[in-house]
Amino acid sequence: MKILIKNIAEIYSSDSKVKKNQFILIEDQIIKKIDSMAKIDQIKDYDHLIDAQDKIVLPGFINTHTHVAMTMMRGYADDMPLDRWLQDKIWPFESKINSDDIYWGTALGLIEMIESGTTAFSDMYFSMDRVADLVEKSGLRACLAEGLIEVNDGQKGFDKALDFALNYNQRAEGRISTMLAPHAPYTCGKDYLQKIKRAAQEHDLGVHIHLSESKKEVNDFLNKYQKSPVKYLDDFNFFDNHILAAHCVHLEPGDLEILKKNNIQVAHNPISNGKLANGIAPISDYLKNNINVSIGTDGVSSNNNLDMLEEAKMASYLQKIKYEDPTAMDTQTILEILTINGATALNLDNLALIKPGYKADLQLIDIKKDSFFYPHHNNLSNLFYAAKASSVETVIVNGKIIMEDRELKTLDKEKIYYEAEKRSLAISKQIK
Amino acid sequence: MKILIKNIAEIYSSDSKVKKNQFILIEDQIIKKIDSMAKIDQIKDYDHLIDAQDKIVLPGFINTHTHVAMTMMRGYADDMPLDRWLQDKIWPFESKINSDDIYWGTALGLIEMIESGTTAFSDMYFSMDRVADLVEKSGLRACLAEGLIEVNDGQKGFDKALDFALNYNQRAEGRISTMLAPHAPYTCGKDYLQKIKRAAQEHDLGVHIHLSESKKEVNDFLNKYQKSPVKYLDDFNFFDNHILAAHCVHLEPGDLEILKKNNIQVAHNPISNGKLANGIAPISDYLKNNINVSIGTDGVSSNNNLDMLEEAKMASYLQKIKYEDPTAMDTQTILEILTINGATALNLDNLALIKPGYKADLQLIDIKKDSFFYPHHNNLSNLFYAAKASSVETVIVNGKIIMEDRELKTLDKEKIYYEAEKRSLAISKQIK
Repeated sequence: MKILIKNIAEIYSSDSKVKKNQFILIEDQIIKKIDSMAKIDQIKDYDHLIDAQDKIVLPGFINTHTHVAMTMMRGYADDMPLDRWLQDKIWPFESKINSDDIYWGTALGLIEMIESGTTAFSDMYFSMDRVADLVEKSGLRACLAEGLIEVNDGQKGFDKALDFALNYNQRAEGRISTMLAPHAPYTCGKDYLQKIKRAAQEHDLGVHIHLSESKKEVNDFLNKYQKSPVKYLDDFNFFDNHILAAHCVHLEPGDLEILKKNNIQVAHNPISNGKLANGIAPISDYLKNNINVSIGTDGVSSNNNLDMLEEAKMASYLQKIKYEDPTAMDTQTILEILTINGATALNLDNLALIKPGYKADLQLIDIKKDSFFYPHHNNLSNLFYAAKASSVETVIVNGKIIMEDRELKTLDKEKIYYEAEKRSLAISKQIK
Repeated sequence: MKILIKNIAEIYSSDSKVKKNQFILIEDQIIKKIDSMAKIDQIKDYDHLIDAQDKIVLPGFINTHTHVAMTMMRGYADDMPLDRWLQDKIWPFESKINSDDIYWGTALGLIEMIESGTTAFSDMYFSMDRVADLVEKSGLRACLAEGLIEVNDGQKGFDKALDFALNYNQRAEGRISTMLAPHAPYTCGKDYLQKIKRAAQEHDLGVHIHLSESKKEVNDFLNKYQKSPVKYLDDFNFFDNHILAAHCVHLEPGDLEILKKNNIQVAHNPISNGKLANGIAPISDYLKNNINVSIGTDGVSSNNNLDMLEEAKMASYLQKIKYEDPTAMDTQTILEILTINGATALNLDNLALIKPGYKADLQLIDIKKDSFFYPHHNNLSNLFYAAKASSVETVIVNGKIIMEDRELKTLDKEKIYYEAEKRSLAISKQIK
């Protein structure tokens, strides 16, 4: 399958300056050629033509930390103290979810991700075989991992998670990759974490974990072990693997050096850290130290959506607030952390640049339809600081169009709305 | 003109609990009747029918601090140190703007405001007679004031501003109100401020001013006068008038009591305070002290849009961060600060509640179209924490439909896009 995208107003890719008036030729799963429209006549052979007049092209966004099935908890619990939020709302709800609920809750989240320009995501939850079915069906790219909480999952959960990671890796034409995912150092004991670490090393799997999310977590470790969670994990060489660490909001002295030394991949969740009042992560310090930072939305229950453009603006403005510096995190940096840094975080090669030889995961954004794109001084600024996801017109993943002119090509929206709504409201009724 | 809105899924108004399955009858400029759909048969006489099936109704949002014409500077200057942002970008651009530019730049902003559910705004800028023409034409409600910077405007500017305030008050079927607007205590001297204060008292006009926006402003006052800007103004009784004070980010001890004692109307600009790295205003403390807080977007050049839903989420999550408390600013509080508190800030009666006898300024929001409204556990949470402005379907101001099913009824979008773009790019070329 060859797709020709012509008349592209501008291409943004973090490896190069903006290119104007271009075409892109996609062949099967790969970006084959990018050139000026002056040379379009060279391209005679293609199966599908997209006219990108008045549109810009960017790599698809990569959401590196989420729990997509939790989309079914949107609006179910807000503005609550963390302990009541978890104990009275989130945990009781989760205790009643079955694998079909996870399927439909995830499907609802995938609609939102596609419609807001996300082409790949890293998910940590349960019944990941059902999530994998949806990744297969939707056409998205994903890094999937069964979440492990020792007291709930134990040896059986570990075996299931490892089995999933080994069996599902590289499925769906290579769009699925897998990791192991111990929930956090405070929900998994040292022995359990070491077992996970050894399995990850043996099978060359990455590890996805929550780390230093709240002050309480850090203080609990300081009280119990006289060291931070970061130091605690480092002391038994947990970081020897490829580590995707979500949050990393609260650091103790020496922690940053540990993250840097171990090439930890930080998944920053600015909106979740806001909703749950955890604070603002020291992202500018990470970036200055060449620690790779990407962005996650976290689950919808702590956000309340999966919109990477909202994260982009929030991330930038929160860094400006934290460092009292309006130059903190500019649009070029945002582009990197939403795209190429996400690919690095998920350990995926040849992804997230608009470049020949790279995977064809990209989005077309309409810059003439909506008032928030006018005037056109700087389309990247307009996209990250002014626009809404509704300007995302067309989404291509692995060389396949999964949304065109805002019409979803792989998912049945009405059916998913119906099932996710029905199941979610039924569960909440059981709890009340 | 009588408009009947039937089948409303839910009505949100900060004076009452959510009402389900309702109709609203609007007669001329006023909400005449609200009742259950069971009683719709009583209503035989109407000119226009709106079916609000799958829609919720809220009062229109009130943006209490903006400079709408600056929409023409969107994306023109971002991520820069404040002094270079002003001296190299904003001021040179503003020095080249004429009143036609202001007209078209403002028109561009009005499109965005209507499309995101804003029905009233408080504007401080130049050539306000041209802005008033657009308020008249667009059907929006606005509180307008000529901004005064002493060194630029002097006596002549003061005369013009007062003349405008007296002549334009209550124009456009009463949709226009006016204030006097000295820019800030650091750009207007004490004598000039006292002259403005006396004129405001004499003519019963409110005063719109920037106050305690940056640390630098406060520190400069402490160095020069050994008191904060708030204390400085209070010491010559500047606050005797109805005062709309934008920002109020940085307080010195005693300032909060002065704001409270003088019933200062705080216009909170969370996103602008983020972009310009000014910090997070102590809004929770204001609310605890019964200081009236409303929300402004500020100008687009320091935002970069006019979307009150973005402000809502940012405001709530920033307060949670500042106070390390996830219960800080819940959805009911957000509803108040976006609606009724805005009416109070602008000194407008019978506005911003969905209540018989109140002005018919309201919006219909589609809760079934977009994935981010699913599932429907809590539509107010979904609106403020998950939705995008694209869900706003219909906007009514003063009993007149100005957008219906997302079609603008009063403004020519294509013409405005064309003019605003052309003028804005031409100005930026002159500067380079």
